[in-house]
Amino acid sequence: MGANVSVEQLEQGILSGDLRALARAATLVESQTDTGREIVTALFAKTGRALMIGITGPPGAGKSTLVDQLAKLLRREGKTVGIIAVDPSSPFSRGAILGDRIRMQDHHADPGVFIRSMASRGRLGGIARATLDLALLLDAAGRDVVLIETVGVGQDEVEIAHLADIIVLVLVPGSGDDVQALKAGIMEIADIFAINKADFPGADRLEQEIRAMQSLADSPGRANAAPVRRVIATEGEGVPDLLAVIRSEFEKAGRRGARVETWKFRLREMLRESLLTSMPDDLIEQHANRVAGKLEDPYTAVASLKAVLV
Amino acid sequence: MGANVSVEQLEQGILSGDLRALARAATLVESQTDTGREIVTALFAKTGRALMIGITGPPGAGKSTLVDQLAKLLRREGKTVGIIAVDPSSPFSRGAILGDRIRMQDHHADPGVFIRSMASRGRLGGIARATLDLALLLDAAGRDVVLIETVGVGQDEVEIAHLADIIVLVLVPGSGDDVQALKAGIMEIADIFAINKADFPGADRLEQEIRAMQSLADSPGRANAAPVRRVIATEGEGVPDLLAVIRSEFEKAGRRGARVETWKFRLREMLRESLLTSMPDDLIEQHANRVAGKLEDPYTAVASLKAVLV
Repeated sequence: MGANVSVEQLEQGILSGDLRALARAATLVESQTDTGREIVTALFAKTGRALMIGITGPPGAGKSTLVDQLAKLLRREGKTVGIIAVDPSSPFSRGAILGDRIRMQDHHADPGVFIRSMASRGRLGGIARATLDLALLLDAAGRDVVLIETVGVGQDEVEIAHLADIIVLVLVPGSGDDVQALKAGIMEIADIFAINKADFPGADRLEQEIRAMQSLADSPGRANAAPVRRVIATEGEGVPDLLAVIRSEFEKAGRRGARVETWKFRLREMLRESLLTSMPDDLIEQHANRVAGKLEDPYTAVASLKAVLV
Repeated sequence: MGANVSVEQLEQGILSGDLRALARAATLVESQTDTGREIVTALFAKTGRALMIGITGPPGAGKSTLVDQLAKLLRREGKTVGIIAVDPSSPFSRGAILGDRIRMQDHHADPGVFIRSMASRGRLGGIARATLDLALLLDAAGRDVVLIETVGVGQDEVEIAHLADIIVLVLVPGSGDDVQALKAGIMEIADIFAINKADFPGADRLEQEIRAMQSLADSPGRANAAPVRRVIATEGEGVPDLLAVIRSEFEKAGRRGARVETWKFRLREMLRESLLTSMPDDLIEQHANRVAGKLEDPYTAVASLKAVLV
């Protein structure tokens, strides 16, 4: 595929299952180019078929291993899989890239598994949009299941987790982070709790803590408490059961991308991102100079900047 | 102090050291009210005196204990202290509020320590601005040192950490999160590394990992690697030395709030926040409806929304 391939060519290639076209488009989307946006726009009507599963949890919970086991299981069923591993961090984290390489070796012979790692190089907010676009792209490309793996610790990650239809929060016993110490936002959005390394001491206690927290919470949106399942991801133990629960929760909850609330949130974030791009940098710099020199207060500066746009 | 106190009265109260006026204003700022913004605007010219120290790191690293020890040490020197504990999570996290109560008991008899916990109840981005406003308020109120404690895991927290003049990243040996697993963004902005629980096994290994990471990194902005110090926060061990290093790094780096770069970043975030507030919710809902029904793609929706503002 040449360098000057058009959006239409990529679109056709993706829809006809051409993996090179998909890889090419994924790179354009990931690096947040205009062409990437055009491809997503063109393919948007073709989305809404894939089951999007979010796998989130603290570092070291075994998310990648679980994602790999789910991918293997899905492949045995004949399903095609897309994996997006999100690492909302800077170029510093070579771990993610290394992990990706290792994974690639595992699945590289299988065109039924398409893997991409995303590292946030741009500014805040950009990564969630790029992840959404990549997920939509994989959906349009006909992947049956898209697995989105992200470290569930900050607001960013909560946002990314919101892209999935079903969110699995992976926790491990005796990790020092007890349930209380975990970021609360991520606890609330979990559709399913997966206790990984369930053969480790403390699995019972962790389950009790999760149950206690669920009984404390008044989540008006959730009629029943999120199911808790135990797995040993390294052995694949409990993974078929987890997948079954994911599917039954998905049947109850429906598709997130078909909900108005989802798109209100997403459009708001995209708008915010887009508005800032249109603000001339030198104007911001002028005001920043004045504020740093205490010639102007920040709220007055923002009001002036806003007046330029509106 | 009555309910209908004016901005001017609060301003005068804060400048004259009235703690009730400060507490009142802090609540207005924290809940992101217009009056809160007016107070910060009015007091902005009086800021720029306090040393702002950011204490960040993963959950369980002992940040609160370290903050308390630093506060005690500063009080012994006769310095006044403001503490802002940021917990960027949802109403769920009762841990933070409980922790705050316990702390309050420790310092409640001492008017020289003013403590506030912030929990993000609003939308993304708001908490960083509210934290900045609270820090500016404490600065204007004449606090010599403001300690900003935040969990250093997501982009949000990186943003909050940027409010401080000097950022101390607290890590503990053998926590399972090794340095690689940590969010890279936070590693890069650390001015000082504090190895807490330095009597635990693995402290040497952790220091080696930090050093290895520093030698790998090419941070053009930093001429010398960030100093690494060991503390045992529960005992206060190493805390005086840490404070000395904080001060010497501050002398080298200067005041963050006096830098144009800082204000470019902050104004951008404030502007983004402010622009979204002016977007009518029903208009977003209309487009969200169309996108959820696949009658419109998200980028076209954002373009239409943008046209309303600009």
